Amino acid sequence: MPHSLGSAFDWQNGCVEMRHGSGGRASAQLIEELFIPAFNNAWLGQGNDGTVLPPPAPGHRLVMTTDAHVVSPLFFPGGDIGCLAVHGTVNDVVMMGAQPLWLSAGFILEEGLLLNELRDIVHSMSQAARSAGVAIVCGDTKVVERGKGDGLYIAMTGVGQLAESTSAPAGDRAQPGDAILISGTLGDHGIAILTQREGLQFDTPIQSDTAALNGLVAELQTAGIDLHVLRDPTRGGLATTLNEIARQSGVGILLDEASIPIQPAVAAACEFMGLDPLYIANEGKMVVICAPEHAATALRIMQSHPLGKQAAIIGRVIDDRHRFIQLQTRMGGQRLVDWLNGDPLPRIC
Amino acid sequence: MPHSLGSAFDWQNGCVEMRHGSGGRASAQLIEELFIPAFNNAWLGQGNDGTVLPPPAPGHRLVMTTDAHVVSPLFFPGGDIGCLAVHGTVNDVVMMGAQPLWLSAGFILEEGLLLNELRDIVHSMSQAARSAGVAIVCGDTKVVERGKGDGLYIAMTGVGQLAESTSAPAGDRAQPGDAILISGTLGDHGIAILTQREGLQFDTPIQSDTAALNGLVAELQTAGIDLHVLRDPTRGGLATTLNEIARQSGVGILLDEASIPIQPAVAAACEFMGLDPLYIANEGKMVVICAPEHAATALRIMQSHPLGKQAAIIGRVIDDRHRFIQLQTRMGGQRLVDWLNGDPLPRIC
Repeated sequence: MPHSLGSAFDWQNGCVEMRHGSGGRASAQLIEELFIPAFNNAWLGQGNDGTVLPPPAPGHRLVMTTDAHVVSPLFFPGGDIGCLAVHGTVNDVVMMGAQPLWLSAGFILEEGLLLNELRDIVHSMSQAARSAGVAIVCGDTKVVERGKGDGLYIAMTGVGQLAESTSAPAGDRAQPGDAILISGTLGDHGIAILTQREGLQFDTPIQSDTAALNGLVAELQTAGIDLHVLRDPTRGGLATTLNEIARQSGVGILLDEASIPIQPAVAAACEFMGLDPLYIANEGKMVVICAPEHAATALRIMQSHPLGKQAAIIGRVIDDRHRFIQLQTRMGGQRLVDWLNGDPLPRIC
Repeated sequence: MPHSLGSAFDWQNGCVEMRHGSGGRASAQLIEELFIPAFNNAWLGQGNDGTVLPPPAPGHRLVMTTDAHVVSPLFFPGGDIGCLAVHGTVNDVVMMGAQPLWLSAGFILEEGLLLNELRDIVHSMSQAARSAGVAIVCGDTKVVERGKGDGLYIAMTGVGQLAESTSAPAGDRAQPGDAILISGTLGDHGIAILTQREGLQFDTPIQSDTAALNGLVAELQTAGIDLHVLRDPTRGGLATTLNEIARQSGVGILLDEASIPIQPAVAAACEFMGLDPLYIANEGKMVVICAPEHAATALRIMQSHPLGKQAAIIGRVIDDRHRFIQLQTRMGGQRLVDWLNGDPLPRIC
């Protein structure tokens, strides 16, 4: 840049000020000193109101998805709001069977946020995007007065491409007889956030499972498995996700409690706090629903991947005009698993 | 929908509660009772993690842009945060010379927001999107506790298509000799917000100019005018926008104060409050920079359009290695017009 915009920011001790959201000199400086070097791609540096991108590959449709991230606290065991936003958005594109390509980032900063926290979060986003093979190509920053936010919120939109020929996974494609798989243990993210928030200590620290699932899904697709439904059980947990699918597909679901993987530390924390892990958010897990004859192959592929080591077949789709989710309990009984009601764990993502 | 999700919302007296952002039953109900009927398009109703969209037309690239909207107050003379978000996002796509197609909406709601205010804002978004010929195809809703937001914030991303053959407008294409046009009066939006915020009364009520500019730009493109630069002077106003362009293009700019259109009521309000209209945000205006031989045609086309009636040629691009913006004042003097410093009018958009 030929002309300097102003005196250097104090990245160590400085705070976000209202002028950083003014659209004037301080905004431009924030973009040039933080966002452009961190996200580091040719598209972001264009310096215009938007970004010009190549079209999807021939024979591909577009996929678009969006998420606002308001997780509290901003930093938690296993991650922070920055990588969480990238993973969550990438996963929503991936759950459509699509390849994620481009992300946009809208920041709502609270006056007084430490600049070094903002920098750490932006670097975490950049690292997460690079690992997932996507680029953050456009952004916007607004600042609200102290007491009108909570550090920062990040809104993210993802755009990807989906081959015309792909029989795309969708919530209405579950069929009676289909197998239901989960890619790993349930409840890690929600319980990691909650223990951090409440200052609880357990013998085994619980880490968020936040991760991008595009590599894992690509391996299933490459193997030619027809993925009827893919869904990441985030807010509302596995219970709500399966209720959504049952409703969309007009089917019932039968789950086997003993086969649902849960870390002992998470199970203990849930028992201690009176929470049901079926309702706790995950940020690096997915539900796979496929024909029963593909289930063993899908399971083997998932278990061979670092993000699917503890994958399991946890139930099957059944014919049920009531669209109920039934759980066969360890005790041999059966109970209905309803949608999440109320919100026991707000601001989990 | 075959199964009802829960008891009806009280749209008249009810408030946003934490459970509306839980991802569970109340979230689903909000989507089905408010967002899907209001935005009313086939893509939004797919009910999956993302939306499958057709690719851009053959021979077109993609354009992507994003904006977070935090304007305060939520309702102001001439508009509200909902239509403002749609107009602002559409305009950012349009300023790239592209045709806007798809929008995403991320809502961050504060617990306690009146449901009828949310409904009015969503309907305003819907109306603005329909008028501009774009569809809101995906969304997300989060709720933060009372005191951690300010009613609601809306993050919006726009995707559009840009013909490969189009010589797209860009901030680095201003050339010495080019004419500079503005599509109408300056400062209307910022002053409308400020008078509402401060409870000021003027004889002539000042309305925001919030509007989508795609129709106006399409007419200039159809006439075959090579638009070197298009930019909407929002935050930071005309002064900051022209400084950005001068910096990107490596040129200077000479403005003629007498030719810059400003409503008398806005000029009076600025004088009363000690503000310079060159720095006040606009939300339905644009700067056009084109070759001098196209300026008269461009002006005639703009003046024939409802959103460009008061368009004017306000200056020209000059050779200047300092990249200064100089204003020839009404008094016959000359002064430099710097970037916006600080933020006299926060949360204007």
